[in-house]
Amino acid sequence: MPKKALIAVGGNSLIRAGERGTIDEQLANAHATCKAIAQMIKQGWDVVITHGNGPQAGAALLRSERAAREVYTHTLDMCVATTQSEIGYILQRALESELKQLGINKLVATLPTMVEVDSSDVAFQKPSKPIGPFYSLEVAEEKKRLLGWDIVEDASRGYRRVVASPAPVNVLQFDVIRKIVDLGIITIALGGGGIPVIKKGRNEIIGSEAVIDKDRSSALLALMLDVDLFLISTDTDQVYTNYNKDSQEGIPNATADEMEELLKDGHFAPGSMGPKVESVIDFIRNGGQRAIITSYENLLEALKGKAGTHVTG
Amino acid sequence: MPKKALIAVGGNSLIRAGERGTIDEQLANAHATCKAIAQMIKQGWDVVITHGNGPQAGAALLRSERAAREVYTHTLDMCVATTQSEIGYILQRALESELKQLGINKLVATLPTMVEVDSSDVAFQKPSKPIGPFYSLEVAEEKKRLLGWDIVEDASRGYRRVVASPAPVNVLQFDVIRKIVDLGIITIALGGGGIPVIKKGRNEIIGSEAVIDKDRSSALLALMLDVDLFLISTDTDQVYTNYNKDSQEGIPNATADEMEELLKDGHFAPGSMGPKVESVIDFIRNGGQRAIITSYENLLEALKGKAGTHVTG
Repeated sequence: MPKKALIAVGGNSLIRAGERGTIDEQLANAHATCKAIAQMIKQGWDVVITHGNGPQAGAALLRSERAAREVYTHTLDMCVATTQSEIGYILQRALESELKQLGINKLVATLPTMVEVDSSDVAFQKPSKPIGPFYSLEVAEEKKRLLGWDIVEDASRGYRRVVASPAPVNVLQFDVIRKIVDLGIITIALGGGGIPVIKKGRNEIIGSEAVIDKDRSSALLALMLDVDLFLISTDTDQVYTNYNKDSQEGIPNATADEMEELLKDGHFAPGSMGPKVESVIDFIRNGGQRAIITSYENLLEALKGKAGTHVTG
Repeated sequence: MPKKALIAVGGNSLIRAGERGTIDEQLANAHATCKAIAQMIKQGWDVVITHGNGPQAGAALLRSERAAREVYTHTLDMCVATTQSEIGYILQRALESELKQLGINKLVATLPTMVEVDSSDVAFQKPSKPIGPFYSLEVAEEKKRLLGWDIVEDASRGYRRVVASPAPVNVLQFDVIRKIVDLGIITIALGGGGIPVIKKGRNEIIGSEAVIDKDRSSALLALMLDVDLFLISTDTDQVYTNYNKDSQEGIPNATADEMEELLKDGHFAPGSMGPKVESVIDFIRNGGQRAIITSYENLLEALKGKAGTHVTG
């Protein structure tokens, strides 16, 4: 039996610092990540790829807003939906091309995915995730008044909408994903953490104006799929204590308990490495075998145990 | 063995005349169509659903253009890609809800789909499909100069970009679609006729700034899947000769040859019923068993042979 891995790719890894994020730039960046993933597949891994969508969803929201007087508006859940096939199209082309270059004849599928959240999640009481464009105070207050948005001041750049980031409760397309994965098809799913939806009555679901952290959703799907490895591909080679300080020190191996201690001690930035570490702890605590946090450049070395941060029970 | 049908749903059927096309409106319209499809599934049909995306892709292009100075631009192939998960999200929610109301426990999957076109297709020499917003002559000429667009004058409403509408050559995710369909999963695929792509060398595909007629693509996929029925769901109950004239007459049954005669005699409007009839002829001529053109309101009656236009060999 081939081993199964879920790889969570950062949405930021497709749009690098200083880039505008043109489709060509995103495709070139996707090739870099997919080259490593294709090698992993060559080594016999069955992989499921999930991905973030931060900059892409921000762009989608802005596009919708700028055209709001002329065409229908995309709600936030719809913006997430559109980024799933946007990024899926990019990742799938890059991965298929890299696989072909290795002579590997494997099918790839992109699967738009909804994730159920709980309307009573406390996150809805205190929206905290900034999304979309920056506004002046005047415009921000108008948005608040007219649209009921929650607004926060962002350091020096102006005002921004904040939305809830509730916990993922269930991956609604799980049965489909499992069946596709069981066919040996490489699956790109759960983009942007999944389209957030809420159950309404027995037969309906409605979209939720929220965003789900993609690493939290990925940990959930990794557990549901019972993968052998949960791998978070991010922009550092491993997790560090005292990151970006003189005393910074890499963590090659740790248990979930050890990572939690470091998390409590404030070593991992909220909204950045924090949620990744939390997701990895969550995965291990709930029965996951092994998790790695590393960059795509170090992915293959990490599989040999020579790079990355490895977290186990 | 359950019988297999491919149902091509019009993109316009989600945004009705006079509607702005809000997500709520599209969802309500999707429910109307999916109610009929759910009944068809209850009767034992395995279905694959394809759909158009005219108004949605137009809106996507306009959004991209309005925000072009602030965020990266979506090329036309990317606009098609985003509408696949947009409309998939809407259709899937509506269909799942309608199936649950009937107590049917079937899985549904949306599958973003690329369709190969040939770069030497004559359609690229004379772009003819109008897309996106209307422009003044001045702006249209600027677009032509700066972006190389082909522009046409549209009756009284201004100037518009025209793009090529090449023939679909191959449905690139066909193997995945077939495997998913074989699992009994209801598949929503080939949105907007598919993302148009061109093969580049042996290992790569690139996006094409074109649109593929969704009925032509649907006929191709229907043949590849060897379905028992190719059903086009549109806004008239059946196909008419002398449509909208006093002498108009419905066509309950016809052979592909008879339909071609009528097509040649100019009974079916280009860009409207024309391509639907052509696609149906194409399907039958290439070995398809049976095709129906009807509206969602008449879909169930059409299956009994009591409504719609039925085309056979």
